[in-house]
Amino acid sequence: MAGTDRTMRDETIPQPAIILVKPQMGENIGAAARAMLNFGLGDMRIVAPRDGWPNEAARAMASRADEVLDHAQLFDATEEAIADLHHVYATTARGREMSKPVLTPRTMAGEGVEAIGAGQKVGILFGGERAGLDNDDVALARSVIQITTNPAFSSLNLAQAVLLCAHEWRLAALGERAEPQAFDEMSAPAAAGQMAAFLDFLSDELDESGFFKLIEDKRPTMLRNIRALFHRADLRDHEVRTLFGVVRSLSGHRQGTRKPPEQGG
Amino acid sequence: MAGTDRTMRDETIPQPAIILVKPQMGENIGAAARAMLNFGLGDMRIVAPRDGWPNEAARAMASRADEVLDHAQLFDATEEAIADLHHVYATTARGREMSKPVLTPRTMAGEGVEAIGAGQKVGILFGGERAGLDNDDVALARSVIQITTNPAFSSLNLAQAVLLCAHEWRLAALGERAEPQAFDEMSAPAAAGQMAAFLDFLSDELDESGFFKLIEDKRPTMLRNIRALFHRADLRDHEVRTLFGVVRSLSGHRQGTRKPPEQGG
Repeated sequence: MAGTDRTMRDETIPQPAIILVKPQMGENIGAAARAMLNFGLGDMRIVAPRDGWPNEAARAMASRADEVLDHAQLFDATEEAIADLHHVYATTARGREMSKPVLTPRTMAGEGVEAIGAGQKVGILFGGERAGLDNDDVALARSVIQITTNPAFSSLNLAQAVLLCAHEWRLAALGERAEPQAFDEMSAPAAAGQMAAFLDFLSDELDESGFFKLIEDKRPTMLRNIRALFHRADLRDHEVRTLFGVVRSLSGHRQGTRKPPEQGG
Repeated sequence: MAGTDRTMRDETIPQPAIILVKPQMGENIGAAARAMLNFGLGDMRIVAPRDGWPNEAARAMASRADEVLDHAQLFDATEEAIADLHHVYATTARGREMSKPVLTPRTMAGEGVEAIGAGQKVGILFGGERAGLDNDDVALARSVIQITTNPAFSSLNLAQAVLLCAHEWRLAALGERAEPQAFDEMSAPAAAGQMAAFLDFLSDELDESGFFKLIEDKRPTMLRNIRALFHRADLRDHEVRTLFGVVRSLSGHRQGTRKPPEQGG
């Protein structure tokens, strides 16, 4: 156990137990720890790891995610690892001949987050690299999770399966908070009045430049199209200011009130 | 190019271009190819790979996904790689100071699948291992994709980012078809009449066994609870037949019409 209380796991989201049943390569345990921490999860349980525990290869691969390994709980049997849990899910590569609901990781994550919210405990079983979970382990679970892969090429490794489930878990846990900021914080959206001022200015400059001279009957339609185009771009405040400058510069150049560019073309 | 027309990519789903910009390690290109094919994607484009092309390390890591590498297109510049595309997304590790919509892979996948359905072409840019996409590449994209990671531990490798985006793409493309079979095909659900017959049988056997003798006033409530419990289990046809046997065996044992178990306990 690490004696520090600094942790990188995300205490703001519900924590399911990620249970690795008879994992073989230490590297894969380490990679699973990284995948968990990538999405803020920190409760790893390990059942009967082939190469014993602790495992140096796991630690080397986990790198900065070694806190997950430091806090991992070790068990001899799957039954012991899940004894305190109310909802247990079993990941399987393909359907088993068992009468259990089969869920996508997304449905599992929605259910699981809700269950923890209701004060229950949730765990997800992942099998070893070679054969996955055996039927006795799957029988301990309430539901089976199946990742929707390409049937022609479906093999995922342990850490990839953990990664995909942990990603779904984080999105379900964050809900709307999972959406990134729609725009950068550098600049506010342009106000409607500022947009209108720019579009009026542009329209005046186009009139003065003779843009509509030969197509006066099409002027209303073309202006509407031009306005729509700029509105659709969902412009930022600073971008409208830039566009004012662009139009001013182009029309100034046309009128010869500014010096022409240094070089042609 | 492989001269075969057998392919493992999933031709039943829309195919976005997965564009690796200045990837470094061949192993990561190979792992990205595997991640693509795991979810049925086959259109890889590679811009200026550090170690040239073809790349033996990429092929070794891709293993059975080498068809993706065989069909990969090579470009000198990102502009060339995206020239035919209508919608280009750029994956970034963190927000850039650019005024672009920032989407989750899920939102991107929904948009992208729809765009291909409308006859447009879609591509997703992934940067090299060390620094990701540079600002000039991001500027070529309409929107930025950000994977919702744990801010305290956010680094994903190239193949993991491809894996998560390809998974979202497949789910968006399949829609409701992404849901696994809710139950195995071994057995149909129990018919209502079969359930009713079993519950009547159980109730009769409980009456005969004296189960309600001392709590006759609670009989209706307890029977309702027992019925609810079995209904909630959403039993299969063969499971109800098993339960008939279980009750028959228990009550037969009680009545002494069958021989007791060989061993006690």
